[in-house]
Amino acid sequence: VSPSAAPAELLLSAELVLSGERFRVVYTLAGEEAAAHRQADAICVEQTVEFPADLLPAGPISDGIVGHLEAFARADAGHWTATVSYAVEIAGDELTQLLNVVFGNISIMPGIRVERLELPDALLAAYRGPRFGRAGLRELLDVPARPLVCTALKPLGLSPAQLAELAYQYALGGVDLIKDDHGLADQPFCRYEERVARCAEAVARGNAETGRRCLYLPNVTAPADRLLGHARFARDAGAGGLLIAPGLVGFDEVRRLAADDRLALPILSHPALLGSFVVHPDLGMSHYALFGQIARLAGADACIFPNYGGRFSFARQDCRRLAQGTAAPLGALRPIFPVPAGGMTLERVAEMRAFYGDDLILLIGGNLHRQPEGLVAACRRFVALVSE
Amino acid sequence: VSPSAAPAELLLSAELVLSGERFRVVYTLAGEEAAAHRQADAICVEQTVEFPADLLPAGPISDGIVGHLEAFARADAGHWTATVSYAVEIAGDELTQLLNVVFGNISIMPGIRVERLELPDALLAAYRGPRFGRAGLRELLDVPARPLVCTALKPLGLSPAQLAELAYQYALGGVDLIKDDHGLADQPFCRYEERVARCAEAVARGNAETGRRCLYLPNVTAPADRLLGHARFARDAGAGGLLIAPGLVGFDEVRRLAADDRLALPILSHPALLGSFVVHPDLGMSHYALFGQIARLAGADACIFPNYGGRFSFARQDCRRLAQGTAAPLGALRPIFPVPAGGMTLERVAEMRAFYGDDLILLIGGNLHRQPEGLVAACRRFVALVSE
Repeated sequence: VSPSAAPAELLLSAELVLSGERFRVVYTLAGEEAAAHRQADAICVEQTVEFPADLLPAGPISDGIVGHLEAFARADAGHWTATVSYAVEIAGDELTQLLNVVFGNISIMPGIRVERLELPDALLAAYRGPRFGRAGLRELLDVPARPLVCTALKPLGLSPAQLAELAYQYALGGVDLIKDDHGLADQPFCRYEERVARCAEAVARGNAETGRRCLYLPNVTAPADRLLGHARFARDAGAGGLLIAPGLVGFDEVRRLAADDRLALPILSHPALLGSFVVHPDLGMSHYALFGQIARLAGADACIFPNYGGRFSFARQDCRRLAQGTAAPLGALRPIFPVPAGGMTLERVAEMRAFYGDDLILLIGGNLHRQPEGLVAACRRFVALVSE
Repeated sequence: VSPSAAPAELLLSAELVLSGERFRVVYTLAGEEAAAHRQADAICVEQTVEFPADLLPAGPISDGIVGHLEAFARADAGHWTATVSYAVEIAGDELTQLLNVVFGNISIMPGIRVERLELPDALLAAYRGPRFGRAGLRELLDVPARPLVCTALKPLGLSPAQLAELAYQYALGGVDLIKDDHGLADQPFCRYEERVARCAEAVARGNAETGRRCLYLPNVTAPADRLLGHARFARDAGAGGLLIAPGLVGFDEVRRLAADDRLALPILSHPALLGSFVVHPDLGMSHYALFGQIARLAGADACIFPNYGGRFSFARQDCRRLAQGTAAPLGALRPIFPVPAGGMTLERVAEMRAFYGDDLILLIGGNLHRQPEGLVAACRRFVALVSE
């Protein structure tokens, strides 16, 4: 048997035509300069052709498909900034493949961190982004200027009726957003559909008493064959938004929900299982890229993250950069709300407003249950603290 | 407005009934003993009720929903082993929620690594696991004992016709499995459907000449609303299996594909974007848990990972433990193939067989293009090397 074309001839005959439009990824590399420069060169190959560079003939693949190292410079002692550009056609219109090009294989190499994405309109055209964003969510809630106030239904272990009673009290207390705790899934002791129906009804009843527009956001994080059905059930039951953990289901599920005109609900993203991308400063992705840019590109309207000084480990500077990522220019995509959380208390509201400004969602859960005046009054105090 | 029940009364009235069946997660914690013990206690709360423990009254939630610290012991200098058990009802029958309980929020805390899962039959009953596994894939291929031989269609940038020509040559060379490079998605210069149709046809043509049963595995990693359609198209076009990157789409998409009786195709998982979970020894998950247990629980029949001594950073011991995870007892779930890859060469085949044994898939890509005898002959030599 004689093959009809030798592989080298195949490569030479590639008739690829590219637009010339490229997107850029800024990486921080840890290590010595020479090794970091070699790693930057390796990224250009690893994230694209994944093929021995010396076997690629001069031509459109080596010129256009292999990444270009656009810049390499010292960041600080032991860290280097490498800017790599990729043809927009490699990512196509797929968020899954964009993430793959940005960090797929090189996530397995130590010392590489995605610092930020620079995405041209030619790529962003494929992304609708957040349906509501900051302005749209404020309009839904009729809260033009102050921080929004959010709390969580918990603890896991309560029945749908008990959680609905909590939701009713939160709504009476005047909070803007009530989300499921992200551990509420579809447990035998608390089924998804019964919980969502009861809680949505309870919040509507609370709203009828207060005249306000509090939204209930059930957790739709679920197996692949149930997720969209959960979201549609939530919409039909009167839920006002959706909570989803992209670390558990993939960021593209956020995009699918955000783009669904039959849903048309605001989306709150939760950081579960995303921690390994950010906890080590020399690995993964920056807070800015992951919780700012990528969550927003996927279409989240607000992004929960663990605030500095809580139960988790984010530094103040991480949180500041993250918040910047929720609003920095990203084509025509709407700015979204940062939602610092994770052990926050009423005592910290003023400090958090000073740190983040008022384009902010404050999420306080367990601490509301600790207040001597009771839950409804504690919620009212929470709202009063952001209304001063 | 007077609320109908104070929150504390709600918690006291919880009428939860649990089976008593629990699953266990073994964590490795880095740090001083006292701090690690506090962290172990915190995990029990963080991964379940996420509620101030002192506000939980004695009762079924604090007894059954909060995790139990079953054991705490020194692992080595500066590392501690904490075994935490959780009620199986918390995870229900959802892989998404199981992963959330195992590592969702605590992924954001430094110094915690998931070492292994211990899952009872009461939980495993919800998982079908790998449809083929080692024995089933061997039967499909009619290769009873030697290592299986796999290669990849690449580089990105070739047209569907060019990739099909490569696939034909690989099939003529007698390899067992031909997978898409994981960077082949649905690019404008190489559309998914045309590529899959042409490559499946080319491999069938090659099989007709060789009399063998080489399988083509296209990459179905794709946006959430296209993935299942891609898989069905592949099956209808004659593809013999599927390649998917759970880091990009979520592990539950693997489970959905594996469980789909209309597909009934073997599944090869790719490690793209999973690296951040394993690259730092004090963070994320062990190679055993992630690439062994979880990939298998999801239903992958074979799991690609970067071998030691290649372009990536896994240590020999990581790879050994990973391979153990693909076959260690996990209820009735079938053992799956480890697929060490990432810059492997024909020169290393003997060494890899010695290290892993022959229940192994050897994946060599670019190196086959470097052989002076040409691609078809290089594939034949690859097969000969595993047949000795």
